[in-house]
Amino acid sequence: MKLATLPNGTEDGALVVVSRDLTCAAPAQGIAPSLLAALRDWARAEPALRALVQQVEAGTAQGLAPFDSGTILAPLPRAPQWLDGSAFLNHGRLMDQAFGNPPLPDFETHPLVYQGASDDFLGARAPLVTPDESLFIDCEGEFGVVVDDVPMGTDPDAALDHIRLIVQINDWSLRQPGPWELKRGFGFLQAKPSTGFAPCAITPDELSAHWRGGRVCLPLRVEVNDERIGEPDGSEMDFHFGQIIAHAARTRRLTAGTIIGSGTVSNRDRAAGSACITEVRVIEKIDKGAPERAFLNFGDRVRMECALADGTPLFGAIDQRVARP
Amino acid sequence: MKLATLPNGTEDGALVVVSRDLTCAAPAQGIAPSLLAALRDWARAEPALRALVQQVEAGTAQGLAPFDSGTILAPLPRAPQWLDGSAFLNHGRLMDQAFGNPPLPDFETHPLVYQGASDDFLGARAPLVTPDESLFIDCEGEFGVVVDDVPMGTDPDAALDHIRLIVQINDWSLRQPGPWELKRGFGFLQAKPSTGFAPCAITPDELSAHWRGGRVCLPLRVEVNDERIGEPDGSEMDFHFGQIIAHAARTRRLTAGTIIGSGTVSNRDRAAGSACITEVRVIEKIDKGAPERAFLNFGDRVRMECALADGTPLFGAIDQRVARP
Repeated sequence: MKLATLPNGTEDGALVVVSRDLTCAAPAQGIAPSLLAALRDWARAEPALRALVQQVEAGTAQGLAPFDSGTILAPLPRAPQWLDGSAFLNHGRLMDQAFGNPPLPDFETHPLVYQGASDDFLGARAPLVTPDESLFIDCEGEFGVVVDDVPMGTDPDAALDHIRLIVQINDWSLRQPGPWELKRGFGFLQAKPSTGFAPCAITPDELSAHWRGGRVCLPLRVEVNDERIGEPDGSEMDFHFGQIIAHAARTRRLTAGTIIGSGTVSNRDRAAGSACITEVRVIEKIDKGAPERAFLNFGDRVRMECALADGTPLFGAIDQRVARP
Repeated sequence: MKLATLPNGTEDGALVVVSRDLTCAAPAQGIAPSLLAALRDWARAEPALRALVQQVEAGTAQGLAPFDSGTILAPLPRAPQWLDGSAFLNHGRLMDQAFGNPPLPDFETHPLVYQGASDDFLGARAPLVTPDESLFIDCEGEFGVVVDDVPMGTDPDAALDHIRLIVQINDWSLRQPGPWELKRGFGFLQAKPSTGFAPCAITPDELSAHWRGGRVCLPLRVEVNDERIGEPDGSEMDFHFGQIIAHAARTRRLTAGTIIGSGTVSNRDRAAGSACITEVRVIEKIDKGAPERAFLNFGDRVRMECALADGTPLFGAIDQRVARP
């Protein structure tokens, strides 16, 4: 099933069940006021939501209305935690190659994960407001999962059983402070403004065989100002989501609604292109001696979508602009 | 005024106003259901809470009852963000000296700040549950501030005007994964389990002249199993709270209820002792050639309190044990 959140004046927004083709949605307030509330009570909420899906598909659900992604919030406008991995090692290897850096310690064996701000997520059409183009504004196309309560010390296999929903993410990044923050060791603050999300959070069964080994095995198409910069496939994720969750839960429990990101989707085959501008630039640097593509400017538009090969939509599209304060 | 949060089955708990001597408290639900709600509506809530304080001190407040810190929650059991600085440079300098590390980039000019988990804070008497003594369990005595909405790009002086409350913190740390996570650059996850808080969040006026230059100019006494390990003074903070807030808000807004920590309080005068065991150990290493004091074991108790010289309590004491899962 596909779940989304409409604005209703509350912080967590109003939960709706969205039709498979993303054309219409029905309010789910009778089941749970918000997606966060549903995740905290998933054993009870899930069957009721699935029953509502059937009514939505049959056109009989109460309050069924056209699904307007123009005003949509992030599926979880705020989450208990936002932990973003860097699970496609190809991306890091390219960065290290271009800048002549040695790999970070245990890069190949332990996922890198940073803690991001989780109180101010952006809906799929909301602009990224950022102070200055000289910060080197970039997008990052990612997949993510939403978990229920994960006990401390959960192992990677068991962690997979805690995945309730899958999301599609634009992890907006500022590349000017990024390397500086990385060298300082304390993680990313200034390099990571608010994160954007595609309209729908979906259950793994929506992906059928494309949800495999704890990975979203589908391409994520990324466009900047209507030009494709890449469509790398999620199947090349070197650490699966269960491994990232287990890494994050080694010494703490995770509470229901915590979001775990994959990091920028990245493929070894250069024909796949890239899911962020920085990676386009480092490939240009490696292959041609210098980067050519510019970072984003105010007014630039980023579109990201992952759909099935037959065009069936999954999460809906992220379509965001960069805006001045 | 002094504000605290009692358990009531909700995530944000029930707001109470506490008497100056911490002996009694009155429910403030008529003003705001929780401290987080009050912070989001501070202009309205503050005068009403201050009026209730007068009734509490006069013994006329409705529902006035003995203040029991045994079951107390953190003043904010969850917060939008928890951003912890490392603003006492003496601490970092000692660590670098003991381990022969060069200082982190711009250590002296830009505060180091990591993003911590903010969904699962511990009350003043709650145990720290952690999986394994071999993780080198440690406490860190800190001060912190709670802000209202801070716009992106707020400068350090203006940031001081967004401080609504001051808190006292035990930033539990696991020292085995700490240096590894620092070298990996993505910040601290495994090294930082849930953070503990003293019972009361207090308004800056409670500190009178001891709130000075954006710093808590009072000693923080730290005891392990009833033995003093230090009482360093907050006045030596090299970056004041406004500077840490401005650093964190450079490229993002902070929402009301965000907590900003000082990092371990640390003084150059060795007679002050230390607010964490690691610092005791590095001083032993520097002065005597090898560390002597052990990290914490299951069952060990950490007490932290900051009071006025005449004994007037401020935040109340943190008194936590280390516990097995």
